[in-house]
Amino acid sequence: MCEDGFFDYLRGIDCSDVEVYAIPEGTVVFPKVPLLRIEGPVAVVQLLETPFVNLINFASLVTTNAARHRFVAGKSKTLLEFGLRRAQGPDGGVSASKYCYIGGFDATSNVAAGRLFGIPLRGTHSHAFVSSYMSFDEIADKALRTKDGSSTCEDFVSLVQKWLNKIKWSNSFRGIFSETNQSELAAFTSYALAFPDNFLALVDTYDVIRSGIPNFCAVALALSDLGYKAVGIRLDSGDLAYLSCETRKLFCSIEKEYELSYFGKMSITASNDLNEETLDALNKQGHEVDAYGIGTYLVTCYAQAALGVVFKLVEINNQPRIKLSEDVSKVSIPCKKRIYRLYGKETYPLVDIITGENEPPPKVGERILCRHPFQESKRAYVVPQHVEELLRCYCAGSSDKKQETLPPLKDIRDRCIKQLEQMRRDHMRRLNPTPYKVSVSAKLYDFIHFLWLNEAPVGELQ
Amino acid sequence: MCEDGFFDYLRGIDCSDVEVYAIPEGTVVFPKVPLLRIEGPVAVVQLLETPFVNLINFASLVTTNAARHRFVAGKSKTLLEFGLRRAQGPDGGVSASKYCYIGGFDATSNVAAGRLFGIPLRGTHSHAFVSSYMSFDEIADKALRTKDGSSTCEDFVSLVQKWLNKIKWSNSFRGIFSETNQSELAAFTSYALAFPDNFLALVDTYDVIRSGIPNFCAVALALSDLGYKAVGIRLDSGDLAYLSCETRKLFCSIEKEYELSYFGKMSITASNDLNEETLDALNKQGHEVDAYGIGTYLVTCYAQAALGVVFKLVEINNQPRIKLSEDVSKVSIPCKKRIYRLYGKETYPLVDIITGENEPPPKVGERILCRHPFQESKRAYVVPQHVEELLRCYCAGSSDKKQETLPPLKDIRDRCIKQLEQMRRDHMRRLNPTPYKVSVSAKLYDFIHFLWLNEAPVGELQ
Repeated sequence: MCEDGFFDYLRGIDCSDVEVYAIPEGTVVFPKVPLLRIEGPVAVVQLLETPFVNLINFASLVTTNAARHRFVAGKSKTLLEFGLRRAQGPDGGVSASKYCYIGGFDATSNVAAGRLFGIPLRGTHSHAFVSSYMSFDEIADKALRTKDGSSTCEDFVSLVQKWLNKIKWSNSFRGIFSETNQSELAAFTSYALAFPDNFLALVDTYDVIRSGIPNFCAVALALSDLGYKAVGIRLDSGDLAYLSCETRKLFCSIEKEYELSYFGKMSITASNDLNEETLDALNKQGHEVDAYGIGTYLVTCYAQAALGVVFKLVEINNQPRIKLSEDVSKVSIPCKKRIYRLYGKETYPLVDIITGENEPPPKVGERILCRHPFQESKRAYVVPQHVEELLRCYCAGSSDKKQETLPPLKDIRDRCIKQLEQMRRDHMRRLNPTPYKVSVSAKLYDFIHFLWLNEAPVGELQ
Repeated sequence: MCEDGFFDYLRGIDCSDVEVYAIPEGTVVFPKVPLLRIEGPVAVVQLLETPFVNLINFASLVTTNAARHRFVAGKSKTLLEFGLRRAQGPDGGVSASKYCYIGGFDATSNVAAGRLFGIPLRGTHSHAFVSSYMSFDEIADKALRTKDGSSTCEDFVSLVQKWLNKIKWSNSFRGIFSETNQSELAAFTSYALAFPDNFLALVDTYDVIRSGIPNFCAVALALSDLGYKAVGIRLDSGDLAYLSCETRKLFCSIEKEYELSYFGKMSITASNDLNEETLDALNKQGHEVDAYGIGTYLVTCYAQAALGVVFKLVEINNQPRIKLSEDVSKVSIPCKKRIYRLYGKETYPLVDIITGENEPPPKVGERILCRHPFQESKRAYVVPQHVEELLRCYCAGSSDKKQETLPPLKDIRDRCIKQLEQMRRDHMRRLNPTPYKVSVSAKLYDFIHFLWLNEAPVGELQ
């Protein structure tokens, strides 16, 4: 074990001299670009390695994963994060909810995250809520006031039963069901009595088409009599493409049969182990889903469960440092650096360029050579029309630099969505995207390779 | 958003009537066996669904993943958990460290987890520590007392340099290096001055064979002159099988050349994106690694990033409840239940059997019919020689039941390791293991299928 003195040392650590430069949260970033630049006393900054890498890796990964799901689902769909139960403990779940929201999700079912960060909360009742009911006898208070408050229906339960009998012989449901599950109907009725303005029912506890949908429609039609509009249903199992299309057909048929203009457009939410691939497959097959609840594959980042962000010493006492490796992708780029994003005439970014701290910045309208950091032959001249410096000071330490303020979560989310929309389409392809180019200045290129030769030990061939 | 009143309600929730029955932590468990049985007021217990599932899913998954890594690595290797930087935030990392220890890891590099749970702490210095040094000039205090305290070497740095020159022309290193990286040598020397009893060096910052190993050996031999034994090295890149074998050869050669009996047996730790497959490949190829540091693939459970534990209502007001699904694996087993693990004459368990709460328990020496919960034809008679009831009371609520006490973490870990060792070997195969059988009593079988027929709505074929 550690000596106790080490914990005392940790407790007493003074971070007041540490400067933090970071790319604003919600920015699209690429491999090799430093996300943070930390300056400060070497012992303190080395102890910060693990906390910083811990805080950045999962946050960046799950935001990216959320953005990928949004990209496949399309802008018009509502995306709900349902992942708390699969996250790495309560805190893992809260991080997941926060960063999925930044990545473009609309809401979370994680009530704590909603409370902490003001993320919109959405969810439905559980299967257990449905199966906790046995019959209508459990509903004590059967009265419901009409939406306009003008009168009260004393027996909403009878109204629901009347509607169920009516639709059983309707054109819409002819031959679809003989008897629906009565405990499910009791649960839906009870839920509607409590939330007449927010009636969204989970319809797959027993059988979607033979029980869940007719029971839902009976309650929704009873609500309609009292001036309320039901919200819709959630499907949590089975063939979501087929079931959503069948449900939509029934909703539209009822709209027509009973002249209820909103009925066909009610919301259909789908869940059940959804991921990028299943969303893509649903799109290809055709479906009638309006909203997706996504959990497991989203928060665990199932398709790629880890991001490999690392923290490297690049300069000490004004001396550049390099970490070599047999694997070129693991060689670090030395020196205190600046990063610029260069834009052309279009709105999308062309290339990122990394320079030494004291090099003159790229100038609008002036040609600049952008070099691949490790491959000599890869280089291009760029004439930027707009130059954006990426690293900003978020913690000035004991320097007198101006500190950026942290924007509200909503603004970070807006930035993220906007940045993704600005990217050139071929960088955004799901299969074989064109890699976005990250370059170094000519001066930095020469310096990297000078150091590399200098630091790498020379062997003797036997 | 939620109404504020809901948060007030959550704050005021009274869990004093909730009873929790659980399988002791560290027990080997199988699909379909309930890990917990919760009893209490329906509203409170429904709100506990997400917290319980959140707390159980990742903990069980990562413990299993750790146990799988231990199984492949073998009992004799030291396993170090290095995953904090890839976990879902600080709390995710602490959970990962705790449960990897239960699953059979020996230590963690997560200092907070060590402090919180008494898990042994192990780690090495970082690459940044190596590259933070430029030269010997940075070492202010060069004196080191001998291990026995009898005298002081006033210039340990010169002693290291003397040894480096000596081994350069030794039989062991002939032709291997001409010059090693001097900042690396300064870093190793400085580390040895601070921790002469715990000198374990990360040797791949520049070049393992040409720089890291000779530098390490020079420092280790200088330490040896003063009576200290170096611990060993860590490899964090490159071909770990090859590099570990080459390193071992050099260590053994030095042992012989300088008559230092411990030198050949020094510890070689390997890290760098290790997982079950790479451990298996290393075993097949042959290697000289004594300890593995495993991070990313361990804590993110990369091979299967989520476990699908769910929480179902099975009984309310003494009435059994069932959740149906088109997918048989999602049909819940109704009723308040007991679970027994049946053992035969050997020490390994034969089968788990789930019964209704009030059925007589299986008896030693008495034949009992074990049925597959859903397939009518699958059944077997078992005559148990030992019967273990799995669910124990950990929270008695307002009942007068005796509560189990929670054992220390070390005991949970011992239980887990012992249970895994007891399993029949064919259940433990990595490829196509024989599934362990989980059964229900004849009475429960009949009841499940009676309820299923009763609850499932009947359709009409068109």
